[in-house]
Amino acid sequence: MPSPIITLTTDFGLRDPFVGIMKGVILGICQEARLVDLTHEIAPHDVLEGALALESAVAFFPEGSVHVAVVDPGVGSPRRALAIASAGHYFVGPDNGLLTAALRPGRWSAVSLEAAAYRLAPVSGTFHGRDIFAPAAAHLGCGVPLERLGPPVTDPVTLALPGCRAEGAGLVGEVIGVDRFGNLITSVTADRLGALDGGSLSVEVAGQDVGPLVGCYADAVEGMPRPIIGSGGRLEIFVRNGSARERLGATRGTAIRVTRRGS
Amino acid sequence: MPSPIITLTTDFGLRDPFVGIMKGVILGICQEARLVDLTHEIAPHDVLEGALALESAVAFFPEGSVHVAVVDPGVGSPRRALAIASAGHYFVGPDNGLLTAALRPGRWSAVSLEAAAYRLAPVSGTFHGRDIFAPAAAHLGCGVPLERLGPPVTDPVTLALPGCRAEGAGLVGEVIGVDRFGNLITSVTADRLGALDGGSLSVEVAGQDVGPLVGCYADAVEGMPRPIIGSGGRLEIFVRNGSARERLGATRGTAIRVTRRGS
Amino acid sequence: MPSPIITLTTDFGLRDPFVGIMKGVILGICQEARLVDLTHEIAPHDVLEGALALESAVAFFPEGSVHVAVVDPGVGSPRRALAIASAGHYFVGPDNGLLTAALRPGRWSAVSLEAAAYRLAPVSGTFHGRDIFAPAAAHLGCGVPLERLGPPVTDPVTLALPGCRAEGAGLVGEVIGVDRFGNLITSVTADRLGALDGGSLSVEVAGQDVGPLVGCYADAVEGMPRPIIGSGGRLEIFVRNGSARERLGATRGTAIRVTRRGS
Repeated sequence: MPSPIITLTTDFGLRDPFVGIMKGVILGICQEARLVDLTHEIAPHDVLEGALALESAVAFFPEGSVHVAVVDPGVGSPRRALAIASAGHYFVGPDNGLLTAALRPGRWSAVSLEAAAYRLAPVSGTFHGRDIFAPAAAHLGCGVPLERLGPPVTDPVTLALPGCRAEGAGLVGEVIGVDRFGNLITSVTADRLGALDGGSLSVEVAGQDVGPLVGCYADAVEGMPRPIIGSGGRLEIFVRNGSARERLGATRGTAIRVTRRGS
Repeated sequence: MPSPIITLTTDFGLRDPFVGIMKGVILGICQEARLVDLTHEIAPHDVLEGALALESAVAFFPEGSVHVAVVDPGVGSPRRALAIASAGHYFVGPDNGLLTAALRPGRWSAVSLEAAAYRLAPVSGTFHGRDIFAPAAAHLGCGVPLERLGPPVTDPVTLALPGCRAEGAGLVGEVIGVDRFGNLITSVTADRLGALDGGSLSVEVAGQDVGPLVGCYADAVEGMPRPIIGSGGRLEIFVRNGSARERLGATRGTAIRVTRRGS
Repeated sequence: MPSPIITLTTDFGLRDPFVGIMKGVILGICQEARLVDLTHEIAPHDVLEGALALESAVAFFPEGSVHVAVVDPGVGSPRRALAIASAGHYFVGPDNGLLTAALRPGRWSAVSLEAAAYRLAPVSGTFHGRDIFAPAAAHLGCGVPLERLGPPVTDPVTLALPGCRAEGAGLVGEVIGVDRFGNLITSVTADRLGALDGGSLSVEVAGQDVGPLVGCYADAVEGMPRPIIGSGGRLEIFVRNGSARERLGATRGTAIRVTRRGS
C-alpha cells in the first residue's frame, strides 16, 4: 500500500504547538502518513472560511487522501464528530458544516466518531483535534474501514455556501474571501458565467464598474481593478501589482453584479 | 527500521529560509527522516517559551523521536551544545535550559556535541542550528549512538519552569502563555487542583473573580471569562467566542489564585 | 531510487491554500516526494527577494533535489516557464530571474515547460504554480528527463544580484535583506572582505560607524550595532539582543562601506 496522504486544515495558527501535537498523534498511529498542511490560518472559529478552503483544495489531491479539518467552536459540547467517505477521499472533523465540501457529491457515507478504540483516552473537553480527529484520520489513512469508527450518520450539518442568483439577464453574487494579494474571490462561478449567452460581460463591485473580463493579470493596466476567472473557477477581482481589497474597499459579503454589456 | 521522526522548534520564524536550510542538512544526512514542525514562532530569544512548547508537545510523539530545538541567544559563545536521551526520546539543542523538559524524568543521559565527524565544517559563529544541531539530530535519527556525538555532560542547565504553590487552603500560580484564541495558560496543573479536597473552586486572575471551573467552552456564557482544565493538563482561563487576554488585560506573569469557594 | 526531495519557495503566504494545492498536485504525480518549505513569505511579487532566498538555501540540500519557486507577477503573460538542471540540482519556476542562483555555475541546461504531457490541463491564466510548475517539479523528482519537458532555452532571464565594488582601499555594498532578528544582511561577501589585506576593518552603515568585525553575537555589547560574517558568508550588522534595523533605521538598499581602520 502506498503511503497515505493526510492533509490538515485548522484555525490553530502556527505559533502554538497544537498542529505539531496533532501530527505527533497521527504519526504515532500511522507512521507512514505523509502530512500536508492546507492552512492553519483560518480565522478563529470561522467555519465558513474553513469549508471554502477545503472545497478549493481537495480536488487536487489523489484519491485515498484523508483530510482532517478542525475549526470547532463547539468542542466539548454535544456536537458530533464525523468521518465521511466521499468521491474517493476521506474527511474528518466536527459536525458543524466544515466538511460541507464532502457532502456535495451525490454519494457519501458518514459515521459519528464514537468508537473508543480509535480515540485517545481520556478525551479532553477542549482539544478534539488531538484526541478524536487526529486518531481517526490516522486510522483511516492506515486502512481501518470507516464503519469501524462509529455508528452511521445520515444527517450531517451542511453550510449554505455563498452562491449566486440570476437577476434579469445577469448574476448577483458576493465576495467570499480575499487572498494574500488582495484579490477578491467571489461566489460567481465560471459555470454560471458561461451560461450567460453572448456579448461581453461587465462586472460591478459595490456599485463600481470594474470592466470586462481579462484573461490574465498582465492584460490589465496597473492600478485599475479588473475581473478575471481565477484558478478555482470563480470570478475574481484583482488590481495588477496592487490590491483590489484596498482599491475597492471590499470585504467578505460585498455585492458583485455581472451584466451583459449594453443589456 | 521505520523512518525516524525529527521535530523542529525554533525562534527563526518562517519568513527567512533558516528552517528550510536545517531541513536540507537533515535530509542530506538522514534521507528517510520525517520532519515535523512544532513551532518556529517562539518569540526571538525567549528560551522559556521554547521550553514550555517542547514540554507540551513531546509526549504526543512516538518513542524514538528526535526533537531539535534552537532558541539560542548565546550562539557562538562558550555555552555547550547538547544531545540528551530521555524517556525514549532524543533532544538536541543549546545548553541554556531550552531542553528542560528532557531533564525532568529521573533518568536521562546527555553529551556535549563536540565530535567533529557529526558537525558540518566549518562551524559558523552564528547558525549552530544548521552546523551542529541539525546534523546531530539527523545522525541520531539514523542510528548513531548518543555517546558517539561527544563527551558526557552531567550538569545541563535547567530552567525553573513556573509552578504553583499552596497558600492557605488554595493555590497561587501565574499565567505562563497566551494561545491564539486569547486563552490564558497557567502554571496551575490539574494534579495540584485535584489535591484540593472537596467543594467547588473559585479562580481569580489579577484580582478578578472568574468563577468556578467549567467542563467545556460551550458551558460558559459568551463574553464572561471562565476557568477550565485545558488540553495540556493546566488551568486555563478562556472567554467563549472571545479573548480572555483582552477581556482581563492579562499577560505572561499575571497572578492566578485558586481558592475553595466559601473558604 | 531514494525518495526525491522537492523544496517550495513562493510569495503565496500560508493563509490561503495555494501551497497545499501545489503539494497535492506534486504528490498525485510523484507520491514518494519529500516536500520541504523554504519560505512562502517572500514579499508579494518580490522576485529579487525570492532569488536571494533560493541562493542562500539550495547549497544545503543533497544533490538531486528539485527546487520549485513561484514569485510570478507575469503569470499568464508570454513570459516562459523554465526548468533548469544545474550543479546536480533541478530548478523550476518562471523565467523572470527568480532562478538566477541556478545560472551562476558555469554549466547548466534549461528547457521551456511546453510539453502538454507534463502540465495539468487546462492551464489557468492565474496559477501556473499549480498547473505548470508543480507538475514539472514532480515529474523531474520522479525521474522524467529534463529534455522531455520542452524545448531548450539558452537565454534565461538573470537578475543582477546586488554585489559590492572596490572603492579606494575598501568596499561599498548595500543591505539586501533584514532577517527576523532585525539583522541586516548585506551584499558584501566574506570572499571580498578576505581580499582586503591586513589591519582591522571598519564598517559604516548609512554613514554610522559600527566598528570592527566580531566573531559571534556574544562578543558585542548589548545595544551597540556590530558587523559579523553571517551564516550565509555575507557581512551582516546585528545588535546583540536587539534589532539593527530599528537601531540604525536601515532597510534594503541602505549603503554599507567597509574600510581598513586607519586607512
